[in-house]
Amino acid sequence: MTIRCIAVDWGTSNRRAWALDGAGRVIARRADDQGLLAIKDRAFAASLQTLLGDWMDEGAPIIMCGMVGSRLGWVEVPYLNAPVSLAELGNGLKTTSDSLPETPYIVPGIARFDAAGADVMRGEECQMLGALLTQGKRDGIFLLPGTHAKWARLEAGVLTDFRTYMTGELFAQLRKGSSLAQLMPPADAPDLFDGDAFDRGFTAAFAGDSPGITHLLFTVRSLSLFGRLTPDEAPSYLSGLLIGAEMKDALSWLKGHETVTAIGSAKLLETYDRAARIAGIPLERLESDDILPPALFSIARAAGLGDLR
Amino acid sequence: MTIRCIAVDWGTSNRRAWALDGAGRVIARRADDQGLLAIKDRAFAASLQTLLGDWMDEGAPIIMCGMVGSRLGWVEVPYLNAPVSLAELGNGLKTTSDSLPETPYIVPGIARFDAAGADVMRGEECQMLGALLTQGKRDGIFLLPGTHAKWARLEAGVLTDFRTYMTGELFAQLRKGSSLAQLMPPADAPDLFDGDAFDRGFTAAFAGDSPGITHLLFTVRSLSLFGRLTPDEAPSYLSGLLIGAEMKDALSWLKGHETVTAIGSAKLLETYDRAARIAGIPLERLESDDILPPALFSIARAAGLGDLR
Repeated sequence: MTIRCIAVDWGTSNRRAWALDGAGRVIARRADDQGLLAIKDRAFAASLQTLLGDWMDEGAPIIMCGMVGSRLGWVEVPYLNAPVSLAELGNGLKTTSDSLPETPYIVPGIARFDAAGADVMRGEECQMLGALLTQGKRDGIFLLPGTHAKWARLEAGVLTDFRTYMTGELFAQLRKGSSLAQLMPPADAPDLFDGDAFDRGFTAAFAGDSPGITHLLFTVRSLSLFGRLTPDEAPSYLSGLLIGAEMKDALSWLKGHETVTAIGSAKLLETYDRAARIAGIPLERLESDDILPPALFSIARAAGLGDLR
Repeated sequence: MTIRCIAVDWGTSNRRAWALDGAGRVIARRADDQGLLAIKDRAFAASLQTLLGDWMDEGAPIIMCGMVGSRLGWVEVPYLNAPVSLAELGNGLKTTSDSLPETPYIVPGIARFDAAGADVMRGEECQMLGALLTQGKRDGIFLLPGTHAKWARLEAGVLTDFRTYMTGELFAQLRKGSSLAQLMPPADAPDLFDGDAFDRGFTAAFAGDSPGITHLLFTVRSLSLFGRLTPDEAPSYLSGLLIGAEMKDALSWLKGHETVTAIGSAKLLETYDRAARIAGIPLERLESDDILPPALFSIARAAGLGDLR
């Protein structure tokens, strides 16, 4: 089958690519660990050719999203400011200037400003567009868990507001380098998930009168001192605390009791689904692999790239 | 003058010692960086003799507080459980078994339990006793800022409740190893304090409707991206966020609008005083160096050690 469009999600640590036909169907997929951090001397073009060189022979347009469009990426694509319709993402594309068989286009991220703060996303906007296109989700609350988890509200296809939580990064930091890490097994092997410990942590941080998270984090230590938390339980408890604090703040801010649409990898979605069940919030899970290719295809088509139906 | 009592505060990173006369007056003081982490092969006795050997010749009792009484310290002294009268600290002393000219006694820490959580302190209880003895503070809210900041309530000399916040440790972790550290000057030199940036961070986290701290931490990044926070401002902003989140939670929990008694080092007290002024909370500052020796002396005397008036 002929490749008519190449879609790429190029993040900080990893990247994924899909070869699509003229109707946006996935013909082939590839992934590797050559995220931004792995690219030396700004050799983005060479690295992309290594991953996708044979796909490029057919002259299909390349459409990319994610941190590749950040200041630390290939080319900085200015943010669109929320509130913004997800249908407008194709208006902000920017190209790279390197010589390649086909010019790659990069989708803009989205920024939000208020009096005291600001927030940004790059890549998550395309995942939400994917949910809109494949599931008809034009309204409601979205959750994109991860290193920097995002909660967002969509109204009639317009991204009106969002908040980022450093949940995943804080977990990684505390798990490997803090005084709490000493109470846990060595951090070089993956943690076994302990559901009961996760639930206890989540409940401690999510409850209406729960203390602030910077206090609760210390309880990993004090509970461990008295044998109320074993080393094997401690990582899951810590994860529960951080996700509990995130979900409590996000739901209070979004005043949401409706279904939350969660987009991500299967494993992380399972953890958040467990949390949402304790919180009494219906969670609909969408795997990012399924909805990102149609979103990028749609943006390429709307921007008039290549020969797409 | 004859040394009648030796008081020692032996913490994780540093230790301080005072030689006292028979009325508890300070004759001499010493300090070094031989905290618990610096002691190899449990050579606590030898290390203490290096610091205080000549003081010990006179046979004065040695009274110690701090992490030296923890599981990772010289000998584990069981916690007393709150609520507990600070006058009872002398009832829980434990001795070390090493051969020394004089047996050192270690003051117990205090633990607190509730249905889901637990909390601990070691050393701060003696500092509060010092405030009680030297300033007559038997009631009110106490704040002991630091790596693991403590807020506590004293009622008629009884420590009824307290909470620990990981403020200092979180700052150190995020300042040196996180994605936020990249936005700041190299972490090997001390940060210059930027008052305006601190105030902005504090206000963002302390305000009544402020978002959760795990979101606000990410705004260090997003504000930096748009030039709303410079690299030099970012550490003070981060410090303001963390202290704002701590103070908001502590004051909400303690329902306190009365004067807060803050005990610590001069520099940290100045930062918290700045925060308290924004919060509209009167803060009374006590330097820990001034009030800890009388507290330890009083405990030694109450326990009948040596020849103390």
